[in-house]
Amino acid sequence: MARWEPDARARLANSALDLYLERGFEQTTVADIAARAGVTERTFFRHFTDKREVLFDGTHSLQAGVLEAIAVAPEGSAYDIAGSALVTGSAFLEERGEFAGRRTRAITANPELHERELLKLARLSAAIAEALTERGTANPSARLAAEAAVSAFAAGFERWSGAGESPPLAECIRAALAELRRIVA
Amino acid sequence: MARWEPDARARLANSALDLYLERGFEQTTVADIAARAGVTERTFFRHFTDKREVLFDGTHSLQAGVLEAIAVAPEGSAYDIAGSALVTGSAFLEERGEFAGRRTRAITANPELHERELLKLARLSAAIAEALTERGTANPSARLAAEAAVSAFAAGFERWSGAGESPPLAECIRAALAELRRIVA
Repeated sequence: MARWEPDARARLANSALDLYLERGFEQTTVADIAARAGVTERTFFRHFTDKREVLFDGTHSLQAGVLEAIAVAPEGSAYDIAGSALVTGSAFLEERGEFAGRRTRAITANPELHERELLKLARLSAAIAEALTERGTANPSARLAAEAAVSAFAAGFERWSGAGESPPLAECIRAALAELRRIVA
Repeated sequence: MARWEPDARARLANSALDLYLERGFEQTTVADIAARAGVTERTFFRHFTDKREVLFDGTHSLQAGVLEAIAVAPEGSAYDIAGSALVTGSAFLEERGEFAGRRTRAITANPELHERELLKLARLSAAIAEALTERGTANPSARLAAEAAVSAFAAGFERWSGAGESPPLAECIRAALAELRRIVA
């Protein structure tokens, strides 16, 4: 019978991140992560499929929250709907600033993690585009609106999670959405 | 001494694409591709690092052409400079419509190829953003302008290379750039 493991998931994520920053992603094994978190490797694999996925747990919650927000959004332009949904759906990240900052450092330092991040963002874009078409926006408009909004989200997130003081995440995303509007206009 | 292999590179790309569409990307080996092209495996590896790269030869030429166009572009908004450079840099693709259409089908059919395509586009964005900052556009504006323009380029390219008749590539890209401007405004 498995031990009761309160918050094993969060502990695994924190341990993984500590190790990636201490000794590098390549040099860290799942066994190392499990040991640091005080659980077995089997527990690791109950929560995550591989050692990259540990850092992308928030992405799934983000996507779910964004799609929910799009479904209930009032009428508006596709870009505004997608942008506001990204602000709403990422609200839970606001209190994870310290983790996010360390996560960004780990991802920037490793090409493999960076690729995974790009793919997750591309999937988020595709999911948002689909949700927008369900609300009646035709393609390629839905796709272009989704990609533009996700691009602004990523820029805002990077500023927020980067080194030094920054405004709240919501404000960083809104500023990037406005900046993109200004640039493209 | 190696045989003289006129246009081995193009023949390898065409043979690979034929095989990916006939039997699938997973089911095709480098040996199969080389045999179909009438060259040795060694010749394959002189031209490409792996069987995915065969389909991304144009991406490198595209990126080189786009960066060159940015370097010599007249004053303008970062989005316009990036958009026009993508139109100029992709002109050589215009006569490769048939190959591009089959390539799009092969990439759409395989998640691994689709991931590689996303990464190549992300790298293209990053290179454009860097070229824009060299011209004096600050970040995150340069990055946002580059990502928006590449997003429009990809939508235009997809329309052009998709099934059925379409306007020339340049026109498809310009239409997507205008559409993105309309959506975000």
